[in-house]
Amino acid sequence: MFDLVVKGGLVYRNGKIEKADIGISEGIIREIREGINEDSKETIHANGKLVFPAFANVHTHVSMSLLRGIGSDLPLMDWLQKVIWPLEGEFVSPEFVKTGALLGILEMIKSGTTLFLDMYFFEDKVGEAVTEAGIRAGLGFGILDFPTKVARTPDEYIKRCEEMIVQFKGHSHLIPVISPHATYTCSPSTLRKSLELAEKYDVPIHIHLSETKSELERVKEEYGLTPIKHLENLGFLSERVIAAHVVWTDEEEREILKERKVNVVHCPESNLKLASGIAPIPDYIRRGIKVGIGTDGPASNDNLDILEEVSTMAKIHKGYSMDAKAIDARTALKISTENGFSMLGINAGIIDTGYEADIIIVNTDSPHFQPLYDPVAQFIYAGKSSDIETVICKGRVVMYKREIKTLDEEKIIREAKKWGEKIKNFMDKNLMLE
Amino acid sequence: MFDLVVKGGLVYRNGKIEKADIGISEGIIREIREGINEDSKETIHANGKLVFPAFANVHTHVSMSLLRGIGSDLPLMDWLQKVIWPLEGEFVSPEFVKTGALLGILEMIKSGTTLFLDMYFFEDKVGEAVTEAGIRAGLGFGILDFPTKVARTPDEYIKRCEEMIVQFKGHSHLIPVISPHATYTCSPSTLRKSLELAEKYDVPIHIHLSETKSELERVKEEYGLTPIKHLENLGFLSERVIAAHVVWTDEEEREILKERKVNVVHCPESNLKLASGIAPIPDYIRRGIKVGIGTDGPASNDNLDILEEVSTMAKIHKGYSMDAKAIDARTALKISTENGFSMLGINAGIIDTGYEADIIIVNTDSPHFQPLYDPVAQFIYAGKSSDIETVICKGRVVMYKREIKTLDEEKIIREAKKWGEKIKNFMDKNLMLE
Repeated sequence: MFDLVVKGGLVYRNGKIEKADIGISEGIIREIREGINEDSKETIHANGKLVFPAFANVHTHVSMSLLRGIGSDLPLMDWLQKVIWPLEGEFVSPEFVKTGALLGILEMIKSGTTLFLDMYFFEDKVGEAVTEAGIRAGLGFGILDFPTKVARTPDEYIKRCEEMIVQFKGHSHLIPVISPHATYTCSPSTLRKSLELAEKYDVPIHIHLSETKSELERVKEEYGLTPIKHLENLGFLSERVIAAHVVWTDEEEREILKERKVNVVHCPESNLKLASGIAPIPDYIRRGIKVGIGTDGPASNDNLDILEEVSTMAKIHKGYSMDAKAIDARTALKISTENGFSMLGINAGIIDTGYEADIIIVNTDSPHFQPLYDPVAQFIYAGKSSDIETVICKGRVVMYKREIKTLDEEKIIREAKKWGEKIKNFMDKNLMLE
Repeated sequence: MFDLVVKGGLVYRNGKIEKADIGISEGIIREIREGINEDSKETIHANGKLVFPAFANVHTHVSMSLLRGIGSDLPLMDWLQKVIWPLEGEFVSPEFVKTGALLGILEMIKSGTTLFLDMYFFEDKVGEAVTEAGIRAGLGFGILDFPTKVARTPDEYIKRCEEMIVQFKGHSHLIPVISPHATYTCSPSTLRKSLELAEKYDVPIHIHLSETKSELERVKEEYGLTPIKHLENLGFLSERVIAAHVVWTDEEEREILKERKVNVVHCPESNLKLASGIAPIPDYIRRGIKVGIGTDGPASNDNLDILEEVSTMAKIHKGYSMDAKAIDARTALKISTENGFSMLGINAGIIDTGYEADIIIVNTDSPHFQPLYDPVAQFIYAGKSSDIETVICKGRVVMYKREIKTLDEEKIIREAKKWGEKIKNFMDKNLMLE
């Protein structure tokens, strides 16, 4: 007997669409074939609907949803220093992080995401929100050289981070991750200590890397090396490292990334919106560097809609490199599903027997899906997150027919609006936005 | 007494959001203020909702919705010659055009568009569909040097085009437009005849211009001049001309466009997807060239969602030019509303007294709108077409709470699916797509 059977869908498997039923038990896909008639505790009818792996959003700061879109049309460094950091200094707290995470998770589930890799403060609160939602996350404990509400010194950050690792290591849905913020905010000593901790507990490292030109200049000035060469010099780089952005790289650095098996997270919309640039993703893929995709925080995006992000990614690299095959629809789908899950060591993001059942069901009744010729390309290029009807994480239905089953959407939105009022009042009094 | 009052919305007017009621009669906005209590035949309550001008999509081939996404991941010339033209040769007919237009119009209304500028065959059928839908269109009668089902010779195209102009000139919702396809598909003689006809009837001209590098090379080889200089040489350029794409231009050409007051239609997603390039739109705007936005045909986009297009536009130019202010949210909104309407001589796209009432109402209840700090920026960067709840064209409600009031959505989708089956069968037998 199965726990759950998804019946009659058009299933994306091995690069093709086939009509099949999917039998799931204990969170694992056990069988895929037409005509599964065994008993099942739960059955979802997906006749005529598309069934894809769920998305993995492998770089975000989910709780920044409460700062959504603030400081639009500013470049990264101005945006951080004049707007975001003062607001975070005032507002970030366990309660802020929890409500922000819940709000962001609503959005992520509604756009088909069942795994995200976060980087922020009070990640235990993100963990609470994720657990309530029934999805998964990498909890990236942010480490900085300067004091915040979390800690005063690098050593104290490392200590708190270790406590979080011990708390969550081995959890079914949560993966503790060490997140030194970047090479321009963490000293070599802090980076070394982060690495030691990661090796001690065998957990991933998540870091911002080569995001902007000004970052390159700053790090070069301080250490005489670009961020990537600086990290290489410190012995920091390995397949344990999940590096976000990686916009500015030269030939030698790309070979280092390839050699060290560093994972790259592309954040196309954030890089565009903050005017950071356009990362050479097709080149990374050609070299065999593993690439995933992230929305980045909703303060700079301004949403957590991963399907929109994937569609932007697939289009922008064609236009920028003037190669219509730069990233095709199937590659875009792989980047946003199996690559993301595998970076965090999760056996999901592929619909096949033996994989964990992270699955979305897509309704194709809308005008923008007619006629349906190539379901994969049309999902990526014409589809919208509002077409995603049902979301399953590790065998559990977390959204059914657009209704989130695990969270109280209205209550979370009410809470978010309250935070919005407080933050607006503060900005009116204290911030000089142009 | 008003025909229609929109009550209690947060109205975008003069670059700001203000709480106001909007009184409309005979299709015109007559009054905007809080507390309109006069009688009204119809009232729409928009409490707490955003009220923006409707969008104008000023370059599309709407009926190509029936060829949606076919030949994805091919560059423009391959895509046209190997895929699209053979399919059009087989299938394009008055019935194809009508069904395709209805399907595309469903999508456009659902993403807040009340005006589109089309370019295709059998435009009288597009006109029929538009009239049934209750929206507006510029009907661009496509003119080519080679024979199609519409005509065999350029003179015959011109004759048929003149018939269409006579049929629709002065229509309340339809504007006849002469559309010589491009400088590489129309001889100087055909272009001259098109211009004469446009002047005779005082109607706009719509043309593809400087879309790809290969177009430039082709036209240079044939005429010794780039497309823009070739047209300038022919005396073709004026504010009557609405030029689509305009990706590849040098300093001198940009000055010509400015001098001649040519209207430019930016098609960011089509240019990206077909690997045509990234048009220098911020530079055009700085020079004072009027810029509108278009989705291009849904075969190369692959949808007609103008809000998605606007969001892509606003982001891509920041990243590409590395200037976070390259196109800000308010400029993006202007490009996609008032600029488009004004290119076709329509006094709409602005919410103010005396303007025609083309208006959309946006629901902000979804998680991705929380908290709401800057409604304009958040609509552009975080909003989705599914948030657009109500659409009004010239005072008439064409969509209310996501339900299209003027067309039978289910029937149109059934018809579109039938066309899809026919086209699929033909492709299986005849086309060698990789």
